[in-house]
Amino acid sequence: MPASLRDMRFLMHDVFDYAGHYQSLGVDDAPDRALLDSILDEAHRFTEGELAPLNRIGDEHGCQLNDGVVTTPPGFKAAYTGYVEGGWASLSGDKAYGGQGLPDSISLFLEELMCCACMAWTMYPGLSRGAVSALDAHGSPEQKEQFLSPLLSGEWTGTMCLTEPHAGSDVGLARTRAEPLADGAYAVTGTKIFISAGEHDLADNIVHLVLARLPDAPEGTRGISMFIVPKVDLDGSRNSVTCGAIEKKMGMHGNATCVLNFEAARGYLVGEPNRGMKNMFTMMNAARLVVGLQGICGAQSALSLALDYANERLQMRSLSGAKAPDKPADPIIVHPDVRRLLLTQRAIVEGGRALIYYAGQVADRATQLDGEEAQRATQLLDFLTPIIKGTLTELAFESANNAIQVFGGHGYIRETGVEQYVRDLRITTIYEGTTGIQGLDLLGRKILQVQGIGLMHYLGEVSEAAAALQQSATQADLGERLQALGNEWGELALNVGGSAQKNLEEVGAASVDFLMYSGYAVLATCWARVAVAAERALADSSGGERDYLEGKLATARFYFERLLPRTAAHKAAMESGADNLMGLNAESLSAC
Amino acid sequence: MPASLRDMRFLMHDVFDYAGHYQSLGVDDAPDRALLDSILDEAHRFTEGELAPLNRIGDEHGCQLNDGVVTTPPGFKAAYTGYVEGGWASLSGDKAYGGQGLPDSISLFLEELMCCACMAWTMYPGLSRGAVSALDAHGSPEQKEQFLSPLLSGEWTGTMCLTEPHAGSDVGLARTRAEPLADGAYAVTGTKIFISAGEHDLADNIVHLVLARLPDAPEGTRGISMFIVPKVDLDGSRNSVTCGAIEKKMGMHGNATCVLNFEAARGYLVGEPNRGMKNMFTMMNAARLVVGLQGICGAQSALSLALDYANERLQMRSLSGAKAPDKPADPIIVHPDVRRLLLTQRAIVEGGRALIYYAGQVADRATQLDGEEAQRATQLLDFLTPIIKGTLTELAFESANNAIQVFGGHGYIRETGVEQYVRDLRITTIYEGTTGIQGLDLLGRKILQVQGIGLMHYLGEVSEAAAALQQSATQADLGERLQALGNEWGELALNVGGSAQKNLEEVGAASVDFLMYSGYAVLATCWARVAVAAERALADSSGGERDYLEGKLATARFYFERLLPRTAAHKAAMESGADNLMGLNAESLSAC
Repeated sequence: MPASLRDMRFLMHDVFDYAGHYQSLGVDDAPDRALLDSILDEAHRFTEGELAPLNRIGDEHGCQLNDGVVTTPPGFKAAYTGYVEGGWASLSGDKAYGGQGLPDSISLFLEELMCCACMAWTMYPGLSRGAVSALDAHGSPEQKEQFLSPLLSGEWTGTMCLTEPHAGSDVGLARTRAEPLADGAYAVTGTKIFISAGEHDLADNIVHLVLARLPDAPEGTRGISMFIVPKVDLDGSRNSVTCGAIEKKMGMHGNATCVLNFEAARGYLVGEPNRGMKNMFTMMNAARLVVGLQGICGAQSALSLALDYANERLQMRSLSGAKAPDKPADPIIVHPDVRRLLLTQRAIVEGGRALIYYAGQVADRATQLDGEEAQRATQLLDFLTPIIKGTLTELAFESANNAIQVFGGHGYIRETGVEQYVRDLRITTIYEGTTGIQGLDLLGRKILQVQGIGLMHYLGEVSEAAAALQQSATQADLGERLQALGNEWGELALNVGGSAQKNLEEVGAASVDFLMYSGYAVLATCWARVAVAAERALADSSGGERDYLEGKLATARFYFERLLPRTAAHKAAMESGADNLMGLNAESLSAC
Repeated sequence: MPASLRDMRFLMHDVFDYAGHYQSLGVDDAPDRALLDSILDEAHRFTEGELAPLNRIGDEHGCQLNDGVVTTPPGFKAAYTGYVEGGWASLSGDKAYGGQGLPDSISLFLEELMCCACMAWTMYPGLSRGAVSALDAHGSPEQKEQFLSPLLSGEWTGTMCLTEPHAGSDVGLARTRAEPLADGAYAVTGTKIFISAGEHDLADNIVHLVLARLPDAPEGTRGISMFIVPKVDLDGSRNSVTCGAIEKKMGMHGNATCVLNFEAARGYLVGEPNRGMKNMFTMMNAARLVVGLQGICGAQSALSLALDYANERLQMRSLSGAKAPDKPADPIIVHPDVRRLLLTQRAIVEGGRALIYYAGQVADRATQLDGEEAQRATQLLDFLTPIIKGTLTELAFESANNAIQVFGGHGYIRETGVEQYVRDLRITTIYEGTTGIQGLDLLGRKILQVQGIGLMHYLGEVSEAAAALQQSATQADLGERLQALGNEWGELALNVGGSAQKNLEEVGAASVDFLMYSGYAVLATCWARVAVAAERALADSSGGERDYLEGKLATARFYFERLLPRTAAHKAAMESGADNLMGLNAESLSAC
């Protein structure tokens, strides 16, 4: 389904002033507003023309494995060729290796357009971008020359190989081993599972980034190193990595989720020995932002279908009298509960999009600036990453389910297309770290371990956004709510920290509720910024533009009045403490 | 997956004393505790032996349509034959027509065992029971003889034919017409969609109960009549009703969801002309309870898988130190957030089961008693029906999703079996009236139109349950919470009623939040009863039984402390009023 170009432009220009942001970064050839619009338009032509038609096809056909060869759904390969030829793969890569050198956040806009059109297809190049960022940060100059260039051109694709059958969230249990060879390379042996885009027919070569253990490496995550294992080795010979199976999944059928068997496959160490987890996090943190974005894109596409349906489908009369008396019934968009379902989706999708665009600027500052500014941005990004990954995916799943609900029985039928988004999105709360893992990351690593530095930075932004909204003629009350929320949030973090000092289980017991609370608070802040910008723009607008801006203001109010109160439930749950989770033994918990 | 026989027995005997209940109804041959246990055991042997193996098969194979003939998945027909031969179809039917005359609630226990084993299969006989109840209440003696007997024996099955392409929630828009024939029968012409079990190969005949319009019938629901349209007519000739298509759905693949074309098919009027909607509600209300039960069963099966996995899967160490130091990692059941996911499931599944068992007794009283007692029970059941249908299905979907989450990436793989429950359950918040329709039914028809009579009856039970819990040595604080909640609930109903008098849209705007609030309040009441019974039973128990009862008490506390606070969010949302939903025009709502 089409992305919302109008909303993308409004956020890009009116709320976050991306052209000004790029100038402030001091990058060469900072793209101005006109260039941004034209990149967006051209990308949108590609994604709507080439990718959107593949979404249903990918779901219906899935991927096939025959004699170790994976065939992607019809049309996937042609679209990938178009993607490479259009230069889309290299948009934000390093010029030294053939990239076009645009700031990273530009890739997010492209990713958004692609994901809205076809999420399963987008995962193939998406994994490449992860590999690019890891190699860019940790590869040797020689490795960059050998592997980064063809990845950036799109000639080759990449993967992340972490998970093993017995090692999921706990990567430290991984057993894949790497034995040094005489020529400085390594023989990598082991089985990796759940490898997205692990084998396919879109590109000539696949660069697997594999976590494995060197001989005598320490146990756990401190003994894990990162290796490049190319499907086709540098000398052109086929490496001994094979696809043993592809998984039958709930959704994302168009993307091949592979079991990969490495049998003394030739690999090349990336960076220092035993620093593989650290290197992998470079990839993973970028990937986590993208997974949050995937959630928003799937929810956007489902919302778009639901809005069309709600305007067309005639069922029952409005409780306050017929709204379309010339028709046999009113369009269902007149009914309050249908509106609740639609506004919930808008509040999540558009609030989430605003959050991604905000984070895109923070990420740019973290990589492009230096010194204190970069450090502040890094701390902020570290703090925001689990919130974006954890809460946007949870809420996006809710949102897409609301879209099914708008369709009623028709939403359960595959032909309508809306249920696919629910099945596709279900993985987003799991891969790249489950919501539970994000909760622990936020509360443990990003708050308690660093004395809440990222939260403190962000609370400053909350106050700023709240103060701006308090100047509004019509939304000042929401600004007050936001400030009160910010104060409460800070106190909650302090209190949880206090309990954790007495009992470490309190961290795990509070983590997901704290995560969700934080997500609602961050979205409230985003909605405050959007509302201020919408009110400003409304002053000199008319017609459809006016409808759009008034819809924005109404959705902001809806968010504050009907979704934000969920923070009270999360607050009460986390304040109830760990005893109601940990006070019973495993036998009692299982005896039912 | 296996149903929880232990929990079924505990509720049946220790919490709700079903044997005493049957005695109090004064029915002939009231089943005692021993008979109940033996029915349960025998039914469980049938469902585990014959049905459980079909669940995955049904999902993978689906139903096939060839030249109008629907073939159900392998094994479905044999299991149906076993069901009929075992006498399970006739358990609670009228003895005059070959039924065994046991109280209706017995059928609920059977339905539970069957649904836990294979929901898609269970829908075939399930629809028959709906047809039986409608014919029993509204059919002529001749019709009962002709159709009720073979339905009760299971020789034939039944359907409900309401929905048309343009008439879903708004049944009044139905266009199917019935023209009188010279011999007193009718020629029924029209297209019905989404007809569960509409065509299949399990039985020799299918009795369709069809809503259609007589010539010159008034518009809307007041012009709808009910007809029996048998697939094979009484004279043995094939009637002109055909299956035009079967739907490809998100889940429930084992059940054939049919488009049925009636082309001057011979039909027989049931009851009075133009009273079809009223007749259909006899069927629908019973069906709505069963859909609530379906939710609980799917969630139970998913929970059962999740508990096994949480005990077996080793990942990471407990935050408070290794719990299984001899193993490479601890079983994930030690982690607080995994426990939160599991306890949320238990609180929903076991609380929901208690609610169904409570409602089963109310339903028995409504049909078996007379006068004031029956009237009170009917009012209570009317009030509880939308709550059971609306909230148990919503929460069951959440619960099954939690089960996937416990499995992590493995939960997304079809082979694990857990994701099927999420896909199967997704329809339960839609069919037999969406959650939105349940919300309107509760707040509009069951509260405002009857001055809250059902709620008032139930609030009496809340106070009773709260008072009993306040006597508890360890749970008295929960009793106090429950009483406060009851008071708040009553006030909320009054306030919403007040707003509705000024603006009818307030009903629709508050309806689903009021529904969910009510669901949490009803579950709290059920958990209070369960906690009281568990504490009582704990006094003279030991070993595994003790674990079970302590788990019950812990789950009750978890429910009150971690789930019940969600009422605050629903309260705030409904108190925010209709303006944030209705204050923007459809163009603004759609402009994004």
